[in-house]
Amino acid sequence: MISNTLQSVASDNNAGVHPRILQAMADANQADAIAYGDDPWTKALAAQFQALLGPDCRSFPVFLGTAANVLCLQAMTQPWEAVICAPSAHINRDECGAAEAVAGRKLLTTAPNPQGHGKIFPRDIEPLLGSRGFVHQVQPRVVSITQSTELGVCYSLDELRDLADFCKQHDLLLHMDGARLPNACAALGCSLKEMTADVGLDALTLGGTKNGMMFGEAVVVFRDDLAAALPFLRKQGMQLVSKMRYLSAQLLELYGTELWLENARHANAMAAMLAGRVAGVPGLEFVHPVQTNALFVRAPRPLLARLREEFFFYFWDDGASDRPVARWMTSWSTSQEAVQRFVYRLEAALQG
Amino acid sequence: MISNTLQSVASDNNAGVHPRILQAMADANQADAIAYGDDPWTKALAAQFQALLGPDCRSFPVFLGTAANVLCLQAMTQPWEAVICAPSAHINRDECGAAEAVAGRKLLTTAPNPQGHGKIFPRDIEPLLGSRGFVHQVQPRVVSITQSTELGVCYSLDELRDLADFCKQHDLLLHMDGARLPNACAALGCSLKEMTADVGLDALTLGGTKNGMMFGEAVVVFRDDLAAALPFLRKQGMQLVSKMRYLSAQLLELYGTELWLENARHANAMAAMLAGRVAGVPGLEFVHPVQTNALFVRAPRPLLARLREEFFFYFWDDGASDRPVARWMTSWSTSQEAVQRFVYRLEAALQG
Amino acid sequence: MISNTLQSVASDNNAGVHPRILQAMADANQADAIAYGDDPWTKALAAQFQALLGPDCRSFPVFLGTAANVLCLQAMTQPWEAVICAPSAHINRDECGAAEAVAGRKLLTTAPNPQGHGKIFPRDIEPLLGSRGFVHQVQPRVVSITQSTELGVCYSLDELRDLADFCKQHDLLLHMDGARLPNACAALGCSLKEMTADVGLDALTLGGTKNGMMFGEAVVVFRDDLAAALPFLRKQGMQLVSKMRYLSAQLLELYGTELWLENARHANAMAAMLAGRVAGVPGLEFVHPVQTNALFVRAPRPLLARLREEFFFYFWDDGASDRPVARWMTSWSTSQEAVQRFVYRLEAALQG
Amino acid sequence: MISNTLQSVASDNNAGVHPRILQAMADANQADAIAYGDDPWTKALAAQFQALLGPDCRSFPVFLGTAANVLCLQAMTQPWEAVICAPSAHINRDECGAAEAVAGRKLLTTAPNPQGHGKIFPRDIEPLLGSRGFVHQVQPRVVSITQSTELGVCYSLDELRDLADFCKQHDLLLHMDGARLPNACAALGCSLKEMTADVGLDALTLGGTKNGMMFGEAVVVFRDDLAAALPFLRKQGMQLVSKMRYLSAQLLELYGTELWLENARHANAMAAMLAGRVAGVPGLEFVHPVQTNALFVRAPRPLLARLREEFFFYFWDDGASDRPVARWMTSWSTSQEAVQRFVYRLEAALQG
Repeated sequence: MISNTLQSVASDNNAGVHPRILQAMADANQADAIAYGDDPWTKALAAQFQALLGPDCRSFPVFLGTAANVLCLQAMTQPWEAVICAPSAHINRDECGAAEAVAGRKLLTTAPNPQGHGKIFPRDIEPLLGSRGFVHQVQPRVVSITQSTELGVCYSLDELRDLADFCKQHDLLLHMDGARLPNACAALGCSLKEMTADVGLDALTLGGTKNGMMFGEAVVVFRDDLAAALPFLRKQGMQLVSKMRYLSAQLLELYGTELWLENARHANAMAAMLAGRVAGVPGLEFVHPVQTNALFVRAPRPLLARLREEFFFYFWDDGASDRPVARWMTSWSTSQEAVQRFVYRLEAALQG
Repeated sequence: MISNTLQSVASDNNAGVHPRILQAMADANQADAIAYGDDPWTKALAAQFQALLGPDCRSFPVFLGTAANVLCLQAMTQPWEAVICAPSAHINRDECGAAEAVAGRKLLTTAPNPQGHGKIFPRDIEPLLGSRGFVHQVQPRVVSITQSTELGVCYSLDELRDLADFCKQHDLLLHMDGARLPNACAALGCSLKEMTADVGLDALTLGGTKNGMMFGEAVVVFRDDLAAALPFLRKQGMQLVSKMRYLSAQLLELYGTELWLENARHANAMAAMLAGRVAGVPGLEFVHPVQTNALFVRAPRPLLARLREEFFFYFWDDGASDRPVARWMTSWSTSQEAVQRFVYRLEAALQG
Repeated sequence: MISNTLQSVASDNNAGVHPRILQAMADANQADAIAYGDDPWTKALAAQFQALLGPDCRSFPVFLGTAANVLCLQAMTQPWEAVICAPSAHINRDECGAAEAVAGRKLLTTAPNPQGHGKIFPRDIEPLLGSRGFVHQVQPRVVSITQSTELGVCYSLDELRDLADFCKQHDLLLHMDGARLPNACAALGCSLKEMTADVGLDALTLGGTKNGMMFGEAVVVFRDDLAAALPFLRKQGMQLVSKMRYLSAQLLELYGTELWLENARHANAMAAMLAGRVAGVPGLEFVHPVQTNALFVRAPRPLLARLREEFFFYFWDDGASDRPVARWMTSWSTSQEAVQRFVYRLEAALQG
Repeated sequence: MISNTLQSVASDNNAGVHPRILQAMADANQADAIAYGDDPWTKALAAQFQALLGPDCRSFPVFLGTAANVLCLQAMTQPWEAVICAPSAHINRDECGAAEAVAGRKLLTTAPNPQGHGKIFPRDIEPLLGSRGFVHQVQPRVVSITQSTELGVCYSLDELRDLADFCKQHDLLLHMDGARLPNACAALGCSLKEMTADVGLDALTLGGTKNGMMFGEAVVVFRDDLAAALPFLRKQGMQLVSKMRYLSAQLLELYGTELWLENARHANAMAAMLAGRVAGVPGLEFVHPVQTNALFVRAPRPLLARLREEFFFYFWDDGASDRPVARWMTSWSTSQEAVQRFVYRLEAALQG
C-alpha cells in the first residue's frame, strides 16, 4: 500500500476526505442506480438545496469548480457579453483560460486595488460599463465575485447587497464563486441563504472539494433561463457525472447536515490559531486580513525555505524578492497538533 | 439512509463500485497529498501504465470518457483538421456536440454500414480522403474507433493492424475510444498492450467507470507532441482533478492488478449466459452479435414494456416500430441470480 | 498592367463585376462617410430590403457567404442545438469546418438521397428528431436548405411551404442559403418575397458575389431575436465592413433595380443554351437536371482533359473513375460566343 | 444617386477610396479569373511583398483588420497560450471579443502606463511571464504591439529591436498590428522592411483600408509554420475572398508603388498642420504626442459639442467630464481646405 506522510499547509485541497463523506459514499454503494442523475440521492439533494436556498433554486452537481464557474458564466451570457471580475479571480488567473477557450467569453478585470484583498465594489465596476450598446466592444453582462476571496477575505452582507443592487440597476447579473462560501458563512455567522438567495444572487458556484469532499461542486441557479440551459451545457461541457449518486451522496452529507459549517468553522479556527501565533513573530507580516482559512505572510526567503523542508506550501508571488509572500492554508483536517508543529518549526527556523 | 432497489440491465454505468476499488479509495484517505497529480498514487499509476503499455506511453487521468475523447482528439488535430468515425461513435452521437462546441472540430462520419456493427474499415475511410490539400474542406487527420463498439462488437487484432497500417500510409493518426476496451480484451484473449501499443495506436481513451470504478478514465498517448499538449488541455478542458489521489488509486487498483480483466470477463460471461437463454426464445432476434457485455434484441413492444416494469433498460431505436430494439447490458456486478430473474421475468412476460 | 485571358466555366465567382455595379461603387466614392454602416447607402439598402421582402425583415451586409451562413446559424441556435442540412450543403462540405470551429455548432446531415439533387424534405428530417430532450445528444433546432442547391436544382414553392410548415410543427427554424437564390427566382418565375418571407423563412443568406457583385452578401432575418443578436455577432465574427458604403452601394444597385433578376436570367439562359448543345452529344450524361446555371456532366476522362486545356472547370467527384463528373457553370458575364466556343472545343475534343 | 456631404475628422476609415486604387480595381475587371487567389494579381502581389519585405515572407490578403489580427494570433498560439498586449490594443478593446470568441485565446494586458501612449516595453511584459510551465495559468507566447499605436504614437526602431530581442530571449513571438504602419514609416522615415522583417517580427497585420483602399489588409508572416496554417485558418475564419483579384489589385497598387507612403505622408502632414493650429488655442490640451495622423485633444465639452455640429468625430473617453477627450484623425483624403475649415469652425466655436 502506498504510504503518504506529507505535511501540507498549501491548500484545503491537499486534505483528505472527511470520514462522514467517505461513509456516505460507501452507503451509496448498493444495488443499481440509473446514471446521470436520475437516482434517489440526486433527487434528495435537489430537494435539500431548495430547503436550504429557497424553492426557486435549481442545482447541478459537477465534477470541479473550474467547470462550475465556466458553465455557469456561459449560461449567463451571449457570446458578445463579458464577465467583470477582479484580477485575482480564480476564473481569470487559475483556470488556464477556460472561460475564453471553452466558453469563448472575454473577462473584463477591474483596476487593481490592493486594499480590496480580492473584493470588488460598484465603484470598480462602473468604469467598465461605458461600452454599452457599442458594437465594437464586448457588452458587460455578469459580475462575478468570490466569497471568500482568493485572498481569504469576506464580503459583508451589506457589501453583497450593494453589489446586487448595483447589478440590478445596471442590468447586470451577479455570480458568486463560492468555492469557499462555507468559510465565509462561518466567519460572518450567516446562513448560506442569507449570503446568496437573500442578497439577490443570480447564480452560485457552491464548493465541496475544499471543505471535506472527495470531488464535486454544485452550480446553483436562481433563474429559469439558466436552469433550462444548464442540463445541456453541463453534458456538452463534459461535466455530467455518470455514476452521479456518489457525487450527490457527498453533497447530501455535507449540505444535508451541518457538516459544511463544522468543517469550515474548524478550518477557520485553525487559521485563527495559527495567525495568533504568527502575529507575534518579528519579521513576519500579514499582507491580507486573516478572516477565513488562509494566511498570506511576507517573510524572509531563507526562513520560508527552511519551513518548506518540513511543510509544503506555495509562494504567492513569483518574483525574486528577499521577502516573498507565502500562503498558508488550513482545512477541515488540520489538527491543533499540526498547527503547533508548524509553529514550533517556524520558531526553530527563526533561530537559524 | 437512502435506499435503492433498482434492478437495471440498462448500462454498465448503472452498477455500483467494486468493493476493492472502494477500499483502495479509503486506503488513499491518509494525511495530506499535493493536489492535481503530484502525489504518490498518480506517480505509481504512471509507472504502472508504462509497465502495461510500454515505456513510451504517457497517461493523463480525467473525470469522464467524453472528456478523455474530446481532449485527446483536440490534441491530435489542428482546428481545420477533422476526425473520421462511425456514425454510431460515442463522440458523434452521445456527447452532445462536445467535439464541435468545446474542441471546435468537425467529425466526418463514414457511410452507414449495418454489417459493421459500429466498426469501420479502410474501405469506409478512403472515400473521405478526397479533400486533402483543398482549402475549402476540412482535412482528415484522425481515425477514431471504439473497441468494443457501441454495439458490443470487437475489432480483431488483424482488423486493428490493418487500420493502423492504413492510417500510417495516409498520414492519419489512430485513436481508440476504449471505454470498454477491457471487455474486448476479455473477449479476444488479448492483453491491453497487444490491442493498443502493439498495433500502432497513437492515442487511447482507457475506460474505468464502466468496469467497476466510481469515476474516471485515462487518456494514454504514444506520441511526444500529445504528451506535451495534454497537461494544458486537461486543465483548460476542466478535467484536472484536484484531489487526484482518489482517482489514481482507483485506476491503480483496476490496472495494477488483474481486476480490470476479471471484471470484464465476468460482465461478458453474464451477457453470454443471458444471450444463451434468450437465443431460444421465439420472436426475439439479436441485431448485433453478442461478443462482449451488450445484447441488442428486437422484440415485440408489449413484451418489452412488461419487462421494463421490473428491469430498467433503454430502447435503442426511437421510432414507433412494433418491434423496437432494446439494449440489455451486463456489468462486473451482474449476478447469475439477476440474469435468472431477468430470464424468468422474460418468460413470464412471453406468456402474457 | 496585368492581363488575364482565362476562359472559365468553373464558377460564377470566376466572373468579373457587372459594369453597373462597378459604377455604383465609383458613385459612392464621394466625400466622407461614417464607417461601419452608419451611412446613407446602408440606410437606403435597409429600406430597400424591407420594400422587397417585407417591413419586418432586418438586413446585415457581410463580406462573404460562408460568414453569412455561419453567423446566421449561430444566431439561430444555442451551443447545444444543431443544424440539419443535406450532406452536399455548402455549410457542411465547403466551409472548412467554420460552423464547427467558429460557431461551435454540430451539423446533422440527412441520409444521402441521390434523387434529391441537394434538396431535403420533411421525410429526410424526421429521423433526426429523435433526440429531443435527451441531454446526451444535440438538439435539432434549424433546418438549413440551399436554393438553388449546390447541384443546381430548385425547390418549388410547394416544397418550400411544406418544409416551413414542417418546421413550425416541430419547433424548428428554417434557414435558406440563397447564394444563388436569384437563379432560382429566375428559373421558377417567382419574386424574392414569394420565395422567402411568404413561405415562412426565419432567416436568409442572400447572395451578391455570384450574381455580378465584387464582394458581399446579406444576412436577412425575419425574427426580432435574430435582429438583436446579429450586430454583435457580425462584429465579433469579423464581418463588420469598415467602409460599408461600397458594399451597400453594390447591394443597392443589384437589389434596388431588377439587375439581380437580369443577371440571373442571363446566367440561366446561357446554361440552358449549353445544355441544349450538350444534350445531343453521345457519351455525355447529365447527373442532375439543368434548372439554373450549373451543368453536372459525366463524360470520358480524356475528353474532359482535352477540354480543360482551354476552359477551366472543376471535377466534382474526386475518384479515379474513367467517367468523372465535371461541373460547368455560367454567370451574368457568360456570352453566347463563349458558349459557342466551348461547344466547338467540345466537339473538336470528341473527334480526338 | 445618393449624395453624401458629411465632413468627418472621426477616422481614416471615413475617407473614400483613392482614385488610383479605384482605377486598379476597374483595370482588374477583365475576363474571368480563378477565384480564391489563384489569379495573376494575387501571384504578383505575393512576389511584390517578398520584394518589399524579404523572400521569406508569405502574404495572405483578408477582408479586414480584426480578422488579420485574430487569425494571425490564432496561428501563433496553442489554445492554452496567451497574447500579451497593451490595454488600449485594438485586439483587446475594439474587436468585440473576437480573439476570445473566435480563436478562444486569452489576452494578458500589461499594467496601465499613461506615459506609454499605447506602447509597451520589456519591463511591462516581464511581470506577465511568471506562469511559465504552471498548468493552471495560460502560457504567454505572443507579444502583440500596434505601430503606430491606437493613440497615434510610434515605436522607434530601437524600441522595436529591444522588444524583438526580449521576445527571442524569452521564447515569445512578436506580432505587429500594422493597420497604420505606413503612417509610422512616414513619421520615422523608415522603410516597411526596416520596421518589420529587419527588427525580427514573426508576423504582421499590414493595413490597407485606413490608407486609401476600399477594403482589405494583409497578414504577412515570416515563419514556415504560420505560412502552413494560414491558408486553412483564413478559409475557416471566413476571410478567403472569392473574387480575390479585386483585393489583390488594391494591395498591388498601394504597395507595388509608393502610394502607401504618399498617402500616409499626406495624412500625417495634415495632422501636423492641424496640430500646429490647435497648439496655440487656450483651453485645448494634447493628451498624446502628435506623431502620425491622430490628435487626442482635451477640451471643454460645450466647445466640442459646437464643433461636432459641423464635423463628425468621436469622444475618446466616455465619462461625464467637463473636459472630455476628442480624437481628430486625418487621412489620405483630408485637404488643406478641410483643415482650414475645421480650424475656422473651432475658432468660431471658441468665441461662443
